[in-house]
Amino acid sequence: MIDLKLTVEDDGPLYMQLYRRIRGLILSGDLQDGLKMPSKRLLCDQLSLSKTTVETAYGMLLEEGFLHSKPRSGLFVVNPEPIGKAAAQQDVSSSFKDVRSSDHAIDFSLLAVDGDSFPVRLWRAALAESLSLNANAVHQYGDPKGDLSLRVSLAQYLRTSREVSCEPEQIVIGTGISYSVFLLSRILEGITSIAMEENGIAQVKEIFDHHRFHVIPVPLEENELTVNELASRNIRAVYVTPSHRPSGSPMPYSTRQQLLNWAYRLDGYIIEDDYDGEFRYAGKTIPSLQGLDQKGVVIYMGTFSKAFTPALRMNYMVLPVHLAEKLHSKGQILSHPSRPEQWAMQWFMERGHWYRHIRRMRHLYGKKREKLVQTVNAHFPNYVQINGDSAGLHIEMRVKTDRTAEKLIELAAAEGVRVYGAQNERVNRSSGNPKIYLGFGGVNERDMERGVRLLKAAWRDILGE
Amino acid sequence: MIDLKLTVEDDGPLYMQLYRRIRGLILSGDLQDGLKMPSKRLLCDQLSLSKTTVETAYGMLLEEGFLHSKPRSGLFVVNPEPIGKAAAQQDVSSSFKDVRSSDHAIDFSLLAVDGDSFPVRLWRAALAESLSLNANAVHQYGDPKGDLSLRVSLAQYLRTSREVSCEPEQIVIGTGISYSVFLLSRILEGITSIAMEENGIAQVKEIFDHHRFHVIPVPLEENELTVNELASRNIRAVYVTPSHRPSGSPMPYSTRQQLLNWAYRLDGYIIEDDYDGEFRYAGKTIPSLQGLDQKGVVIYMGTFSKAFTPALRMNYMVLPVHLAEKLHSKGQILSHPSRPEQWAMQWFMERGHWYRHIRRMRHLYGKKREKLVQTVNAHFPNYVQINGDSAGLHIEMRVKTDRTAEKLIELAAAEGVRVYGAQNERVNRSSGNPKIYLGFGGVNERDMERGVRLLKAAWRDILGE
Repeated sequence: MIDLKLTVEDDGPLYMQLYRRIRGLILSGDLQDGLKMPSKRLLCDQLSLSKTTVETAYGMLLEEGFLHSKPRSGLFVVNPEPIGKAAAQQDVSSSFKDVRSSDHAIDFSLLAVDGDSFPVRLWRAALAESLSLNANAVHQYGDPKGDLSLRVSLAQYLRTSREVSCEPEQIVIGTGISYSVFLLSRILEGITSIAMEENGIAQVKEIFDHHRFHVIPVPLEENELTVNELASRNIRAVYVTPSHRPSGSPMPYSTRQQLLNWAYRLDGYIIEDDYDGEFRYAGKTIPSLQGLDQKGVVIYMGTFSKAFTPALRMNYMVLPVHLAEKLHSKGQILSHPSRPEQWAMQWFMERGHWYRHIRRMRHLYGKKREKLVQTVNAHFPNYVQINGDSAGLHIEMRVKTDRTAEKLIELAAAEGVRVYGAQNERVNRSSGNPKIYLGFGGVNERDMERGVRLLKAAWRDILGE
Repeated sequence: MIDLKLTVEDDGPLYMQLYRRIRGLILSGDLQDGLKMPSKRLLCDQLSLSKTTVETAYGMLLEEGFLHSKPRSGLFVVNPEPIGKAAAQQDVSSSFKDVRSSDHAIDFSLLAVDGDSFPVRLWRAALAESLSLNANAVHQYGDPKGDLSLRVSLAQYLRTSREVSCEPEQIVIGTGISYSVFLLSRILEGITSIAMEENGIAQVKEIFDHHRFHVIPVPLEENELTVNELASRNIRAVYVTPSHRPSGSPMPYSTRQQLLNWAYRLDGYIIEDDYDGEFRYAGKTIPSLQGLDQKGVVIYMGTFSKAFTPALRMNYMVLPVHLAEKLHSKGQILSHPSRPEQWAMQWFMERGHWYRHIRRMRHLYGKKREKLVQTVNAHFPNYVQINGDSAGLHIEMRVKTDRTAEKLIELAAAEGVRVYGAQNERVNRSSGNPKIYLGFGGVNERDMERGVRLLKAAWRDILGE
């Protein structure tokens, strides 16, 4: 018997508590597909709740498709694809805290960036000079979407470097991906579910989870997103990183076109996160998916956190025109980065420093990736396979063992090395050897070598089992 | 017959649309207290909605107290105090946009600050020097609550200057009041209504409205908040500006104690917005209400927007310890200002520049207020009464006319002058002559003189009617 009792810590109206409790149990898989729910009357009695409270909660679950009503027999759980208990209960803050202030000796963080290459002197100059240039506006509120001058420079950069098709009016400067997802939760009102590759990185999933979105892992077929799955499950939004998928390869053109056609047909949205699109070390960078969009279905996200620094808390979205207008007319914008730093960034871009900085970082990260791949191959000649192209700020490795990714992460942690898993451990397990992600942006060469040695020690006894 | 039809622009599940529509009509006063609602079946038929949809929406309204059920006779509207149609339909973005980019020749904005006194050279130095000092951390994520060093300096300033009792752990650095209210909407989960003085300023009310709070205007008695009203209406949170109330006077000690006792007794919260607490031009500044709190019921808000500049988008809250912990443990923090600017502010405070800047601004704004009062008195010797102490960044004036504040604002606008009204025009009207607010922070002396002359021309024909 499933325990539906409401806990003391919970808060808000009783129907919301009951709704959240049941939805949580469905998402976690504790309430299985097809399970018959207790009748309203029984639940009222068991939990000492009013009929209205139970009816309201059941009504919300029914309308959102978590329950299904069969005439004359009752309500049943709809749960073809539970997202897994651990994931359902994960807490965004704790995972971020861990990443940010790790106790681990060496952290192959997926978020960290290189510690020695921020152009301190140049940024000092950018701040100082742009402040003087804009001294007459420093006492004024800015445009909530971000200063126009920065949006103009950014639009030009995105057009030439990422083949994004955009006007400054479509750009919203924000204060980080979590804030951007919050904005999307406000303007994508009818959309409650976001599909994501089943090997997507857990931290992104958590951010969506946190802002009322239900994240649905979509299986891969021959390592590609199966677009038919989206259509058949009635999903209307998907999060992708086409320039550099979790596995390391870009999304092929055929999948891009399928995705666009799916979105055109179903009135859906594609959220393209291009956070590391600048970093491709062999051959040309892959143009954005947004640039192929003919009908305004792609929401393009980019950030200054990877190529520049996360300390700035500055990112941006390029919205389809109708969403940009909706955002503005609804007054949903809570905040924006400070104007002096927007001016500094504009100064930095306008004078060509941004292009030069990107080129420099591409070279640096390319070398770091090469070094990491060499080191891993040297220490694990037989038991690890590194997937994907020479791109991005992390590698995906498939480890030959019958243990889970979770176990590998735990063993590594015991040796003082932090490595990462995918969003959906359950799916990982069923599809072969576990996948482990190592970020190299924030790790220097010495620690890289040391970290991989420690990994080898940590996993010595379980490889190849 | 009230039109409950759902409009095309609306979005989200149907029960939410119906719920919002009915709630909106109750808040606006279109559905009056005691009105009998159509039966569920009738509404299903009329709107072609399913029974579940109507039941769910009605259930939410019932549980939140917007409807009341009488056995055997149906559902009735509960609406003792509608907030007024115009207010209910106001849009935060549009009002802010107006303030920020006014077409008016002269804008006595309540948000603007002085345009000539921002210390550009000193802030350049603060940015440059603090960036060099912190160069080794510029590539790292910061503490989501704000950098500890800034919170330490700020706690010290608040203790010595505002008698706020706080530790750095209680401080959250944010990106503006709208963002802070968003955070409160996440951690004050059981609280849906916020009481506010009925003459409170409309822009603040709109921000709360925007973040799922229902703003309840509380009547004044002898110009003071009647705390008994809060208790009798079962309200659990109140927004106040004790150092400088809308009328211009500080909240007397007796009211402060009554409020605290009310909060202790009912497990309530007092949101103290001290946005202009530094600006008192005659006598000592009034210590914060938070400093009197013995049990952690006061949420203290402050900002760098008034005394420094709104372009920085930097403010802060001092939370009771249990709320600070809740905020952190729940991972509700979306964003924070950039670290380089937090470092600059810390540098600025640590070296005593902040104290000197505040003293300088206090002197400047004191002179501006005096000038405005003199100018108004000279041009309206008989028809305008200026209320309140010599404090803050705006004056409240009561205009002797039988027209509404709305009309006065409209006439002024026609002459190219922008002036402001209180949140609750309806209440204003019933309690005598209309009140008009003039901000002086962003207006220079020449425009002040010109603006008041234009007001005189605008109102010539209606004064004393």
